[in-house]
Amino acid sequence: MTDAFPVAAVQFGARLYAPDENRARAETAIRSAAGKGARLVVLPELAISGYGLDPEGLARSAEPGDGPTVTGWQALAAELDVVISGGFCETAGGNLHNSAALVTPEGSATLYRKLHLFDGEKNVFSPGDRGLPVVETALGRIGLCVCYDLRFVEVARALALMGADVIAVPTAWVGGFDRNARDAMGFIGQARGAMVQANLNQVAMVCASQSGGDQGIRFLGSSLIVDSFGECLAGPSEQDADETLIASLDIAAIRASRVRSALVRPREDRRVDVYGLTVSGTTY
Amino acid sequence: MTDAFPVAAVQFGARLYAPDENRARAETAIRSAAGKGARLVVLPELAISGYGLDPEGLARSAEPGDGPTVTGWQALAAELDVVISGGFCETAGGNLHNSAALVTPEGSATLYRKLHLFDGEKNVFSPGDRGLPVVETALGRIGLCVCYDLRFVEVARALALMGADVIAVPTAWVGGFDRNARDAMGFIGQARGAMVQANLNQVAMVCASQSGGDQGIRFLGSSLIVDSFGECLAGPSEQDADETLIASLDIAAIRASRVRSALVRPREDRRVDVYGLTVSGTTY
Repeated sequence: MTDAFPVAAVQFGARLYAPDENRARAETAIRSAAGKGARLVVLPELAISGYGLDPEGLARSAEPGDGPTVTGWQALAAELDVVISGGFCETAGGNLHNSAALVTPEGSATLYRKLHLFDGEKNVFSPGDRGLPVVETALGRIGLCVCYDLRFVEVARALALMGADVIAVPTAWVGGFDRNARDAMGFIGQARGAMVQANLNQVAMVCASQSGGDQGIRFLGSSLIVDSFGECLAGPSEQDADETLIASLDIAAIRASRVRSALVRPREDRRVDVYGLTVSGTTY
Repeated sequence: MTDAFPVAAVQFGARLYAPDENRARAETAIRSAAGKGARLVVLPELAISGYGLDPEGLARSAEPGDGPTVTGWQALAAELDVVISGGFCETAGGNLHNSAALVTPEGSATLYRKLHLFDGEKNVFSPGDRGLPVVETALGRIGLCVCYDLRFVEVARALALMGADVIAVPTAWVGGFDRNARDAMGFIGQARGAMVQANLNQVAMVCASQSGGDQGIRFLGSSLIVDSFGECLAGPSEQDADETLIASLDIAAIRASRVRSALVRPREDRRVDVYGLTVSGTTY
């Protein structure tokens, strides 16, 4: 296992309901990030379909979990020796899902369907039905969730307790949820929440957001890469920027951070005799 | 029920192993806060014994759960029509506990024993054995936890899901846990964590910390009062300040914040079919 390696958070505003164009754009971004040494590349939520809530537009932009996006990423992952994670609109059994995949150079593809649908997503997507994934990769163990999922503290906690070293978060952050979009340091609530939860759960996070306003919603951007002490290593990106953040994560350091000192061990110090978090039948 | 009312976070550095002096000082602070209209007054962790880890010093400063501190607070609560919460060293069955009480004007006294012992506390205190309390008061439902407890996301989550509108947090924040004590806005990790968790759990928090360095440990102060959107209404206090923060909390607004919009309902949107948090036998 490589302990330290660069990771990339690719922020862009997709073109709405233009999957071929967005797929090509994602490929360009993945190749560019890999060219800069990134071994893990995270793309935004619904990066391929674009983020829109029109059922017909989404249906036209949807594909199965083994469609051109995932198979294309599998080929790219093998060619470039990178782990790739990003969001697309999945069609399965007549339903649409706000899905994300994580593919490895070895050819595995893990599919995640967003558990917590945000706002109008409830009207077009079916809620996730595949639990929360943590994928063992050659880089380390990578968990996956999408955007609004992070508002539910059970999600990052569960992924961390399931063994995730890093959580990939394809996202499309929007305003209107917190009272103030940004604090004085330029952090939006979602980015600040990622930082604090990374610290409390001793995991790194790579959050890659949609940006700009061309899809009819003004996204907040604010992609960022956070270490397991909750420190922001790269970002937050500007709201309208199309850019790729790169920072180095060290898996050995992340694992070491689960013990903060001889008597401060935030994992062991949990009171599992008093509480337990049960996820898909297993209690942590 | 009064919807909106002032609350107070009393920050001071106690005198080590001087319970009579600290009890008098706490009474002065409670009277002063009540005189300014506060209906809930929160005092620091181990405010009465002082924060030290010498077993003999603590044993000399300890008292039972119906000792002079709690009975004194019961009398004050009734006299001043305030809810009082704060920390003291409890002796019970030959053990010492890092305990906190919450007493109401009606005479009830709820005892909490810190579940998560921090660092050297493990050598002198027995871990908490009374679960996590949420107390129905005339002001609203008030949950209680102490300092390091907040590092475990299950705690604030559980208290919120058990119905707490406000969480009282007697604390004695110290450095050395995060890499940087303060961010550019002057927030320590613990204070920032309280803000984010208040937002994610839709509860207000009143955190009252020890301050100064006279007890042999340099506390971080940084007491603060946070609303259920994670906004800091008062504080963070300066590290060495002895001061009482006062801000108004509105229980109706806190409860309303559990629904952020017609389709964004962070309580209802939880995926209890996928995960559950079990606390003392009940699953949320």
